Amino acid sequence: MVVLDGELRNAEALRRHLPRTVRLHALPPPPQPGGAAAAGELPAHVAAWLLSAAPGLQALAQELRALHAARLAALQAAPAAALASLWWPFTQHDDVALADVGLVDGRHGDALLMHDPRAETLRPMVDACASWWTQGVDAATQPALVRAIGHAAGRYGHVMFPENAHAPALQLAERLLAGPGAGWASRVFYSDNGSTATEIALKMALRLHAQRSAPPPGAPPPRVLALAGSYHGDTLGAACAGAPSVFNAPLQAPWYSPRAVIVEPPGAAVSALGGWHVSLPAWLPPARLAPSQLHFHCRGALFDPARDASPLGVAYRAHLRGVLAHSAGEEGLGAIGAAIVEPVLHGASGMHFVDPQFQRAMAQVCSSASVPLIADEVFSGLWRLGAPSACQLLGVQPDVACYAKLLTGGTVPLAATLASEAVFDAFRGAGRQQALLHGHSYSAHAVGCAAAVEAMDALADAARNGNRLGGEGPPRLRELWDPRGVQQLAALPAVSRLVCIGTVLAAELAAPAEGRRAHAARDVVRHLRAHGIFARPLGNVVYLMVTPMAPPETCARLLHALLQELCAEPEGAKEARERSVVC
Amino acid sequence: MVVLDGELRNAEALRRHLPRTVRLHALPPPPQPGGAAAAGELPAHVAAWLLSAAPGLQALAQELRALHAARLAALQAAPAAALASLWWPFTQHDDVALADVGLVDGRHGDALLMHDPRAETLRPMVDACASWWTQGVDAATQPALVRAIGHAAGRYGHVMFPENAHAPALQLAERLLAGPGAGWASRVFYSDNGSTATEIALKMALRLHAQRSAPPPGAPPPRVLALAGSYHGDTLGAACAGAPSVFNAPLQAPWYSPRAVIVEPPGAAVSALGGWHVSLPAWLPPARLAPSQLHFHCRGALFDPARDASPLGVAYRAHLRGVLAHSAGEEGLGAIGAAIVEPVLHGASGMHFVDPQFQRAMAQVCSSASVPLIADEVFSGLWRLGAPSACQLLGVQPDVACYAKLLTGGTVPLAATLASEAVFDAFRGAGRQQALLHGHSYSAHAVGCAAAVEAMDALADAARNGNRLGGEGPPRLRELWDPRGVQQLAALPAVSRLVCIGTVLAAELAAPAEGRRAHAARDVVRHLRAHGIFARPLGNVVYLMVTPMAPPETCARLLHALLQELCAEPEGAKEARERSVVC
Repeated sequence: MVVLDGELRNAEALRRHLPRTVRLHALPPPPQPGGAAAAGELPAHVAAWLLSAAPGLQALAQELRALHAARLAALQAAPAAALASLWWPFTQHDDVALADVGLVDGRHGDALLMHDPRAETLRPMVDACASWWTQGVDAATQPALVRAIGHAAGRYGHVMFPENAHAPALQLAERLLAGPGAGWASRVFYSDNGSTATEIALKMALRLHAQRSAPPPGAPPPRVLALAGSYHGDTLGAACAGAPSVFNAPLQAPWYSPRAVIVEPPGAAVSALGGWHVSLPAWLPPARLAPSQLHFHCRGALFDPARDASPLGVAYRAHLRGVLAHSAGEEGLGAIGAAIVEPVLHGASGMHFVDPQFQRAMAQVCSSASVPLIADEVFSGLWRLGAPSACQLLGVQPDVACYAKLLTGGTVPLAATLASEAVFDAFRGAGRQQALLHGHSYSAHAVGCAAAVEAMDALADAARNGNRLGGEGPPRLRELWDPRGVQQLAALPAVSRLVCIGTVLAAELAAPAEGRRAHAARDVVRHLRAHGIFARPLGNVVYLMVTPMAPPETCARLLHALLQELCAEPEGAKEARERSVVC
Repeated sequence: MVVLDGELRNAEALRRHLPRTVRLHALPPPPQPGGAAAAGELPAHVAAWLLSAAPGLQALAQELRALHAARLAALQAAPAAALASLWWPFTQHDDVALADVGLVDGRHGDALLMHDPRAETLRPMVDACASWWTQGVDAATQPALVRAIGHAAGRYGHVMFPENAHAPALQLAERLLAGPGAGWASRVFYSDNGSTATEIALKMALRLHAQRSAPPPGAPPPRVLALAGSYHGDTLGAACAGAPSVFNAPLQAPWYSPRAVIVEPPGAAVSALGGWHVSLPAWLPPARLAPSQLHFHCRGALFDPARDASPLGVAYRAHLRGVLAHSAGEEGLGAIGAAIVEPVLHGASGMHFVDPQFQRAMAQVCSSASVPLIADEVFSGLWRLGAPSACQLLGVQPDVACYAKLLTGGTVPLAATLASEAVFDAFRGAGRQQALLHGHSYSAHAVGCAAAVEAMDALADAARNGNRLGGEGPPRLRELWDPRGVQQLAALPAVSRLVCIGTVLAAELAAPAEGRRAHAARDVVRHLRAHGIFARPLGNVVYLMVTPMAPPETCARLLHALLQELCAEPEGAKEARERSVVC
């Protein structure tokens, strides 16, 4: 604070009352207006004031220089401090060099403000991994989220939840039940992240099944029907619902017990020749189908409910009925007590687009067999794929569904497990032991609920979210990725699989040739930094992800940069550009 | 907004520019000063102004009445909405009547502002369960937390964490390593709640042990040494580290597999005759010890490291060595790969105070056997028991420790798992599969880290935290509960066990006599509401918990109210008082 201080000696008084963290500088009172000066010279009264203010101004300049130097020093020291004290998730620390450590000094909508140690400056980078798939709002909406968070923090802090209610928790429940839960869900159970939301969902669905099927005491633990390549979280229960993988191998999860009956799903991707094609799993030889059955003129055609009656729809259901029947007869193994899916797009395993008809078939077969269906929409829900819920795209109503990530618009952890009244009823009855005895201390914390209410409202409102289609029909986002660019990408030899839907565009890179492209995705991602784009590889997949409110120019810029990087251009040009990479 | 509007027609202009959520009322411009009035009458110019302003004032009053009515209606409707849409953790919904639903409209330090539907008003209640053990700061510090949260939300939102750093995450790591991690920890792994922090801790400790012991491929999964009555969370991995109970029985957790070798620990409590006494588990018959071995003149004496050499200390170590040796020989069962303790006080199972010497013995025996020790300080850490870490009270250094709940001062979910460099090193090496492949999207979210930095600083600062003892010696809080009141409670016939340490005072009620007190704790808690105290029963235990910054008068008020309720007073008096309970 700078005070132009006269006889009143305000500076002295202020110094006594202000906290010590406020630095106060006193300068002489401003000069009285005086005469004009000769050309190129200061007016005499200004020159006199500057002379009298010189010691104060010098002290102020010194302090500002010191503050700036301290800030620069802190930025410079941060990567080493990070390497010495942090333990990052999913990271082999031995592979992270000092220069690899990104230092984030702020965010503005889709842009991360990152420190560039070589240029000693801050540089905006497009957050093309949406900060681990959490980011929901644009720069214009960010302040509204901050206000909602500040208000809730000041008014409620956190409030014990069981048997209590507060306005943010109720308002969010209302929105979730009217949005992704419309038509089937009646209950909201809050927790902290996708993994806990899934553990809760499993307990819910398995209880409903147990109540319906009344297994004899001592029956082996129930299993779940799940799809190869799906991912439901890292806590043990969520991990046990997944297929065996490096993530739950004994080295990582010594207590993992496989509880899932895994089915390989058919995939879908943009065809290099235009349209989309379905690729079949090993259990369904393509010879049994006409090629036209596997080609679709657009992505929307994959979601057509009329496909229920197609030969593929019939084959899917027959196979799934067979899996259920076979697993029921496996001695010593539990019955299938629930099914769990990531609807439409398998995120963590590499952005695999599942043929929507197959997940529709799963819902139909499970419903007939009274096997509750869990939709793990932690990744795919809340406008990620262009709709409030990925199940709505499928035309499927689950019994239980999980939401997290985008829920708070990309600010604080919060998760919600939605359930139908039939699921809720399975926990009612005499005594507490019948209740769902699961909880986390910050259940339904007001800050997260308030942020989520604001985020859900902004995303759904066409007046605030430029991507939200208005008019009649189900709530949807416009197509975010330019179809010509998408088609160009799909046709590149470097791309072996391309999918795009909603906020996600992902390119799987062609298999390594002569060992040269073993780290192809990592290299592409590194090259994208020169374009001011912060992306992360996912195995051999490069994906771009924006917020559901991303302006069209952001999507165009990302798509263009990826096209540039994946086009066959002389290696030399690429190398030269890479040398200019500063971050 | 009310505008006294003249010829400038500001109201019209403002209406065009203000958001529609701002309600604007225009009144005529303020009257010019005029003459005085006769006694008991309004001056003529004021009367004239009021007359001209009457339509506007009436509209304003109508709007204010409507807003108030809408607010009251929302408050009145909330409990029914809560019963219809929420699913509370650990709650049998069939047991919750409409009148039982608490509606929280705000918080001010230790006080919850709760809606009283009968009186149509809001009523402050002392939050004596510290909102599920999360609350950390007093009313004066709450605004600082809100500022930290607002700043972090605006500046960072959330930022992808792996290979990145930001100031709040680094600053919090520094404080945790210098505070509860001092002397042993060098790494901080962030997650979202106590349960995830424990899952991560288990993966860390079991890996270190596997690396040291190199079990043959196909060896049965490792087990953990744990104490009866401990609780480590509800996700499956955390649950499997606990003893079998109603919380992980097949009805609740169909995938639970017991992975713990459970040892019954000796307990300690305030003696009805003064001082503290130790009660021995079945495996250690008291006949083998002189009665003086089990009596201590004060709580501090229980923590005296000289007890290592006592007959009890020797007996504890011998038993624990025996457990380790025996479990190693159990065919088909895994080796003990880690030990896990809630240091000093077992929270969820009923505030059981474990003889500190026994947990010291555990640390010593595990260290000798190269079994890593996990301190689950989710409940007991961060000043809960009067010190930054409960392990510091024990004089024990773990290999891994978990923190959550108090970490953000009671605002948003955040957890941290601290680890020694030896643990971290077990995950280094060639390739990502050696790394800890566990993570949650909001890892190290800036809002939580910033809140935690502010909370940790406030708690540790004697100038801000009136309970923080200054001077030399290890960081400690003053004794929060009046020793005379504590002794009075311990001597009551209604109290079968009393413990107090740090912010916690807990009374286990005597066993039901003639079926009359089967819900004794629930009844006492209900009666406390008449005192303006919001508590929750924990089985047959009534506990009071305050923030580590609670003013002395809050503790005195709580203790006094509990004494009143537990003293044998005529039933009639209690009934009459209960009739005046409004919430």
